[in-house]
Amino acid sequence: MQDFIYQVDTKILFGHDQLRNLSKEIKKYGNRVLICYGGGSIKKSGLYDKVIKELEENDIFYKELWDIEPNPRVESVKRGVEIVKKHSLNFILPVGGGSVIDCAKLVAAGAKVETDPWKIVIGEEIVKEALPIGAILTIAATGSEMDKASVITNVKTKQKLGWASKHVLPKFAIMNPEYTYTVPKYHTSAGVADIMSHTMENYFSLNDGCYMQDRMAEGILKTMIKYGPIAYNDPENYEARANIMWSNSWAINGLLGSGKSTAWSVHAMEHELSAYYDITHGIGLAILTPRWLKHVLNNETVEKIATFGKNVFEIEETSDKFEDANKAIDALYKFFKDEMHIPMTLQELDIDETHLRDMAKATIRHKNGPIKGFQTLQEEDVYEIYKMSL
Amino acid sequence: MQDFIYQVDTKILFGHDQLRNLSKEIKKYGNRVLICYGGGSIKKSGLYDKVIKELEENDIFYKELWDIEPNPRVESVKRGVEIVKKHSLNFILPVGGGSVIDCAKLVAAGAKVETDPWKIVIGEEIVKEALPIGAILTIAATGSEMDKASVITNVKTKQKLGWASKHVLPKFAIMNPEYTYTVPKYHTSAGVADIMSHTMENYFSLNDGCYMQDRMAEGILKTMIKYGPIAYNDPENYEARANIMWSNSWAINGLLGSGKSTAWSVHAMEHELSAYYDITHGIGLAILTPRWLKHVLNNETVEKIATFGKNVFEIEETSDKFEDANKAIDALYKFFKDEMHIPMTLQELDIDETHLRDMAKATIRHKNGPIKGFQTLQEEDVYEIYKMSL
Repeated sequence: MQDFIYQVDTKILFGHDQLRNLSKEIKKYGNRVLICYGGGSIKKSGLYDKVIKELEENDIFYKELWDIEPNPRVESVKRGVEIVKKHSLNFILPVGGGSVIDCAKLVAAGAKVETDPWKIVIGEEIVKEALPIGAILTIAATGSEMDKASVITNVKTKQKLGWASKHVLPKFAIMNPEYTYTVPKYHTSAGVADIMSHTMENYFSLNDGCYMQDRMAEGILKTMIKYGPIAYNDPENYEARANIMWSNSWAINGLLGSGKSTAWSVHAMEHELSAYYDITHGIGLAILTPRWLKHVLNNETVEKIATFGKNVFEIEETSDKFEDANKAIDALYKFFKDEMHIPMTLQELDIDETHLRDMAKATIRHKNGPIKGFQTLQEEDVYEIYKMSL
Repeated sequence: MQDFIYQVDTKILFGHDQLRNLSKEIKKYGNRVLICYGGGSIKKSGLYDKVIKELEENDIFYKELWDIEPNPRVESVKRGVEIVKKHSLNFILPVGGGSVIDCAKLVAAGAKVETDPWKIVIGEEIVKEALPIGAILTIAATGSEMDKASVITNVKTKQKLGWASKHVLPKFAIMNPEYTYTVPKYHTSAGVADIMSHTMENYFSLNDGCYMQDRMAEGILKTMIKYGPIAYNDPENYEARANIMWSNSWAINGLLGSGKSTAWSVHAMEHELSAYYDITHGIGLAILTPRWLKHVLNNETVEKIATFGKNVFEIEETSDKFEDANKAIDALYKFFKDEMHIPMTLQELDIDETHLRDMAKATIRHKNGPIKGFQTLQEEDVYEIYKMSL
């Protein structure tokens, strides 16, 4: 186990009626709020009205930033920063899923500097402070409400890049599983795949002595396998939505990766898919992950992949570790395809060979060289994994 | 899953050289420190000298409170409060295990009031503020470095009682697994039993839909089963000490109990044992837990106990759930006895029938009535469990 620092001080308000605490929590930090949201699903569901009512009844001034894209773009961030500066806002309130929260994080940091917020994403501007953020979560997927990271897309440069700062860790998050009842089936599946991918990016490593973290990771994966299909088939099942929502936070908030070197190999490859084709992040992860595992399966990795099969999918051990590992990868593939009904080929998303080589080059470029993860991936490996995914 | 609030903002500095950050972390909060420690094992190990050097080199004023008992007494707390007030200290630095940290917590809260600190423990004085605390952990057991609770003993009234306040959650904890290399075998075992007990107090509940939390609890139990014996037999095994130390925090910091009703049944019974006989807390928990499970095994609880056996001890399922559950309880008993070499009867601790009835009465009295946990325990149940443990 490597040395590490762990600190996640987000206050989680979980359950049915937590929205009643919204104003009280906001007022600890500010009173002039930028509400951020996406395409308006929160208006359809009635959540928007409840939030506005809560703010107005408590004399909290607010402005709005809406139309934030599923892969949030730096242009939306700039619109947000402009509103914040114009109205001297002092609190950022994303109401939505990871896209909205990720956008809100860059608005919160961008509002404190004079330069283009994209410079923060590419590391040219260091974040020294940010406006406080409180999140109201409506999709379980990215875990952005309880972590320091954000992913922003620049369509002009075809870049989808992650950045992180402790200053943008939300101060609080209101997590009511009922808000996710209206998430469409496709995005419920994408969310489950995203949570599983975060867990697996932390989990698949070699002999690092982080046994506890790996057993907890298996716990989250088992939770997804149990409740993913239930939420898919019975969207208003509170127990399923609650377990998925709470898992979503723990898959990525630092616990599972504590003491480990993690490379987030599949995320690096998926970010290029989304940058080039604007596909749903979780779907891209589901497609790539089993192919990645097949590609990196070798004498060094076989033990861990077989353990994954045994502990997560309850695959019976045989004397042939490779057989066990292959069964594990197949079980993961089948879970995504048959239980979560995810289109498991790139072709189903209208992606063909055209940009595979460019995306492989970009993956390596954006990682500043080969991806040193579970197994080192060179450009050729990434290209091969994309091809396997067609 | 019930509604809940979760917030644990302790900064964890985990690993080899984290002591170098001590002064920097203290100075965020104060510059006049009360160092708290126990019987002097930190002097033998050399840790005391390192801490003093770090403080002196950074011009941090300090006073000392030592001889804190394994079951920390309110008299030690009063000594601490007196030193703090006399020297206008503004930071509390426990260096030790749970006893030292628990004592430090009541010193931190007691320093802010004029009344007897025992009134805080019995709930007659509400904690509104406390001095900031930073902990240097030297024993993995109670998880006190990352939680809000503290347990204090009053020898005069034969009371060992828990209390909690968010104001005494440590601001930071320095956790170097090497500091636990010198923990004697008996206390290494007691620590492992304590961690497992915390986990099981959270785990054993009925149909509350907290599936994720229970799978994570199983992960911690598996970690103890793997590494407990390694740490016992090979005290300087870093990987074992690190996994046990990190598990110790997560067993009790709120994650495993989030969304649940927990009654801490075994702790309630053990507190009387320690109050009457001053025994090592973790040993008392190890003795009581299997007897408690045998006592509460019935049609309602059998499924959960069998699941525990399957997922934690890899006991193969049969068609007879009661057989599976009994095997699970036996496996737990054997683990404590054969792997951790814990004396598994009260008689081995020189405890006989004399006070069993009084302790059973006191257990119920201190819980203000029957213990409403995995199964409701009346005085007669507690008495029976004590008798089974003789």
